[in-house]
Amino acid sequence: MGLACPIPLTDYDKILMAHGGGGTLSHQLIQKMFFGHFDNELLRTEHDGAVFSFGDQRIAFTTDSYVVRPIFFPGGDIGELAVYGTVNDLAVCGAEPLYISAGFIIEEGFSMDELWRIVQSMKSAADRAAVKIVTGDTKVVDRGKGDKIYINTSGVGLVPPGVEISSQKIQRGDKIILSGKIAEHGIAILSAREEFDFETSVKSDTAPLNHLIKKVLETHPDIPMMRDPTRGGISSVLNEIANKSRLGILIRETEIPIAGDIRAICEILGLDPLYIANEGKVLLFVPEAKTESVLHILRSDPLGEHAAIIGEVVNDHPGRVVMKTAIGSNRIVDMLSGEQLPRIC
Amino acid sequence: MGLACPIPLTDYDKILMAHGGGGTLSHQLIQKMFFGHFDNELLRTEHDGAVFSFGDQRIAFTTDSYVVRPIFFPGGDIGELAVYGTVNDLAVCGAEPLYISAGFIIEEGFSMDELWRIVQSMKSAADRAAVKIVTGDTKVVDRGKGDKIYINTSGVGLVPPGVEISSQKIQRGDKIILSGKIAEHGIAILSAREEFDFETSVKSDTAPLNHLIKKVLETHPDIPMMRDPTRGGISSVLNEIANKSRLGILIRETEIPIAGDIRAICEILGLDPLYIANEGKVLLFVPEAKTESVLHILRSDPLGEHAAIIGEVVNDHPGRVVMKTAIGSNRIVDMLSGEQLPRIC
Repeated sequence: MGLACPIPLTDYDKILMAHGGGGTLSHQLIQKMFFGHFDNELLRTEHDGAVFSFGDQRIAFTTDSYVVRPIFFPGGDIGELAVYGTVNDLAVCGAEPLYISAGFIIEEGFSMDELWRIVQSMKSAADRAAVKIVTGDTKVVDRGKGDKIYINTSGVGLVPPGVEISSQKIQRGDKIILSGKIAEHGIAILSAREEFDFETSVKSDTAPLNHLIKKVLETHPDIPMMRDPTRGGISSVLNEIANKSRLGILIRETEIPIAGDIRAICEILGLDPLYIANEGKVLLFVPEAKTESVLHILRSDPLGEHAAIIGEVVNDHPGRVVMKTAIGSNRIVDMLSGEQLPRIC
Repeated sequence: MGLACPIPLTDYDKILMAHGGGGTLSHQLIQKMFFGHFDNELLRTEHDGAVFSFGDQRIAFTTDSYVVRPIFFPGGDIGELAVYGTVNDLAVCGAEPLYISAGFIIEEGFSMDELWRIVQSMKSAADRAAVKIVTGDTKVVDRGKGDKIYINTSGVGLVPPGVEISSQKIQRGDKIILSGKIAEHGIAILSAREEFDFETSVKSDTAPLNHLIKKVLETHPDIPMMRDPTRGGISSVLNEIANKSRLGILIRETEIPIAGDIRAICEILGLDPLYIANEGKVLLFVPEAKTESVLHILRSDPLGEHAAIIGEVVNDHPGRVVMKTAIGSNRIVDMLSGEQLPRIC
């Protein structure tokens, strides 16, 4: 005890919504408060999960809490999201997800019938992802001290021999492949909120990516880096990777897959789809010689049919993400301070 | 989808505080809603964690969310509790705890300085328990949708060869050893609440039990069963074990270690200490021939110095816990419906 708080209290003496948004403030909090103090070689990788060895087995371990509002939304619900989110975090560590825990924090007065719908949804999601929910915990908090239900899932999986996902393994010239269209999850959540006042058929893309990623890794176990661009969108993940690897990233606006209706909604609402959450997409860094093969594998699966090369790792602007826009100019794609849409996952 | 909700909605169509209390309603919810639907061989053990094999390594995996109110209390805080609680759940599975995850759900407006105190406390607790916090997650919820901070910790550990903790391995005649005095955590939490109106020096017993349990298992790897009597107290844990093993449990009131001031507070407030939470105690089921040796090991450690034999496994009343009272009568020790003190951990 007695160490000074590493977040300057003169700047932020209280937690803001933006500290949970996946942007700059989130990162500052995580870096200074958590990584700084808990410091160890596994945390230092700053990946979506930790990978460690037991005997000759490499195991990935990850955790996420889900506080999405509303809990039922077009294309999914909090239960499904909680299973797929953790499955995907394991998958982008290169692991085959196997076992999941479920920790429920339920608000007093929550509907038993809605809880049952969520439990059924988690079971279906676990079956689809081929994982087992093997341990759990239930806490109830007083009315007004929660928001219906929050779910934490943690997961463990096995990393196959030869697979090692790390931003340190990215090389200049690697192509950046995105497995499909962006911003669907965030816009689906937004459309389900009371304040959203027009009709859309947009659905969340929430899906388990482990089977798709396994197919890629079976052919190309040496893929250097992958991440799922959830909270904060593709821009936040690309910024994290550029920053961690000290390499430059160039993306091309015209190559980024996005549905016309999503683009239209973003334009009307003044939202930037680069910052909007996805829950069924993966960004892969792939050596140029393997890009056609990886694209072929991805596009053969319904979850990757719209896969595209959206950019590459470059010599210029180390640590930064730059986008060549549709009109040909270069725009720096920074991290946002917070998140355009809070409580997206 | 489409299956009927297994909790009769006519009985409980909303979640009550008691569903999180560790008593009958908690068990009904967990059994019918979660175990019934997620059903698999690991869940069916109904232990504090799941144990599975990767290659020739046996791994324990557990999760708990901490919603204790207040977050700072005599003898500890939510951060320390979150680390020790999960360490202890791994330890009573027979595992050596190694890696811990930390998932924070923070209410908007929470004090940065208090968060920093909690982070430091988690770090000290992890060091004392010799575990590493290797992965984490931070979510922020709107003001009024949380209660300062909730923390989920999950953990993984290695089960040494020869160790297999299971209520199915308990035998008639096994002695029941409790590692120390009961009800300290619950009373410490109560004393920190506004509604409590007298002074006491009672402190929570929150502590990591893994080093103590390791010493016991190194000499006696064949201990059949252990549990830490947290939420719901020793009565709830003994009832779960009696029920799962279909054996009778007899305990003796006069043998149960309890401090005089705790007993006095319980009498004044009409609380039964058998149902009050502990956070640094373990119940061990031990074959009679080994009890003296186990007691000796426990009592040589400050965390086990008050260890005592409190009862045994008997032929009578299978599935039930009976207590011989101080005045010599027999009392059935049932599960409570809820919890005397909500949000104790």
